[in-house]
Amino acid sequence: MTETAEARLAALGLTLPEPVAAVANYVPTLISGKLLYVSGQISMEPDGPLKGKLGDDLGIEDGQKAARVCCLNILAQARSALGSLEEIGQTIRLTGFVNATPDFTDHPKVINGASDLMVDVLGERGRHTRAAVGVAGLPLGVAVEIDAIFAIA
Amino acid sequence: MTETAEARLAALGLTLPEPVAAVANYVPTLISGKLLYVSGQISMEPDGPLKGKLGDDLGIEDGQKAARVCCLNILAQARSALGSLEEIGQTIRLTGFVNATPDFTDHPKVINGASDLMVDVLGERGRHTRAAVGVAGLPLGVAVEIDAIFAIA
Amino acid sequence: MTETAEARLAALGLTLPEPVAAVANYVPTLISGKLLYVSGQISMEPDGPLKGKLGDDLGIEDGQKAARVCCLNILAQARSALGSLEEIGQTIRLTGFVNATPDFTDHPKVINGASDLMVDVLGERGRHTRAAVGVAGLPLGVAVEIDAIFAIA
Repeated sequence: MTETAEARLAALGLTLPEPVAAVANYVPTLISGKLLYVSGQISMEPDGPLKGKLGDDLGIEDGQKAARVCCLNILAQARSALGSLEEIGQTIRLTGFVNATPDFTDHPKVINGASDLMVDVLGERGRHTRAAVGVAGLPLGVAVEIDAIFAIA
Repeated sequence: MTETAEARLAALGLTLPEPVAAVANYVPTLISGKLLYVSGQISMEPDGPLKGKLGDDLGIEDGQKAARVCCLNILAQARSALGSLEEIGQTIRLTGFVNATPDFTDHPKVINGASDLMVDVLGERGRHTRAAVGVAGLPLGVAVEIDAIFAIA
Repeated sequence: MTETAEARLAALGLTLPEPVAAVANYVPTLISGKLLYVSGQISMEPDGPLKGKLGDDLGIEDGQKAARVCCLNILAQARSALGSLEEIGQTIRLTGFVNATPDFTDHPKVINGASDLMVDVLGERGRHTRAAVGVAGLPLGVAVEIDAIFAIA
């Protein structure tokens, strides 16, 4: 892939949101050695949160859309921290928390919304390890929260 | 901040507990390269666990107190592993698990109890990335569990 | 411990399964610097998943068996990534997600199934930090999911 991540984003018709500042005594990103840690990003769009619970009021596609939003927010934070998406060496880890009922079992399909977008934007540099689990609830009642670790190029 | 973390603790009227040994085939802390990993610390005070569920029998302030206790236990483990809180270079990551009902949505406010104390004690070195999620349950029925990664100074 | 991990596995009567390829845009393992990250491994045996919920249809021993299966899958992935279990320098972190009801409180006992096996196979190199929490649900309805970070020898 010789295209830049920004070109891929544009080709996908996507724009990264303004990265949201942390509203408490934590920070959205931290660099330690060659690793960039990104705080858990929720399914919050510029015009509001994507709320709901998988297995209750949300279907798989709703969840995938929420996971994509988390991924866009993660990339926005990474770009803000590193200056450019080209400074991402590799996406190392995503931990995907899905707001879901006790009988929901398709968490991987939901988090694929983020995994697929990560690779669409970053190519091989976007392939990552991950965990996908169902949680009892999430901040603001959002559908998905995902945290991330990147290796810096 | 020129004060030591110990001086800040004292000024806050706080004392770190004796770090609790792991009671199984895991360890409370591990150093790998320049990183210190701390096992999930629960809201366990020297005289017993802070139990309960947010959204059910616990209010936000109860949860914040439980998160503070987790933070004290994390700092106690870090001091034990490194010899001194001054050896902490930076708090890198906290993952906060809140024992909560499916409709609870204020997990960030709860985990702020830990985030605020971390910065109160360590200053800028205490600012961290984090995730805050609601889980179905926690060991012993405690209200909060938090794990941590530190960079060593 | 002068025995190899393979000899310990054999003495335990255990065989590592074929590592399962990721079925989406993520990867089972990634090496970054001296760390090996392993994606969340579920309680999936070669002949099918170990499903169920602690506190509901599963007892502690069922959960421990599921956690052992997760550990075997983690070790299989690590061996595949590194070429040999002898290339594991240290197990750094396990995060154990237990599929459990809101009133279940013995998550540590469940995850001990993985922690004990890790040390049985790797000796001191198998001692790790960990977190153990109860989640609302897991992929396919499995009982346990565990992700891992290793230091490379």
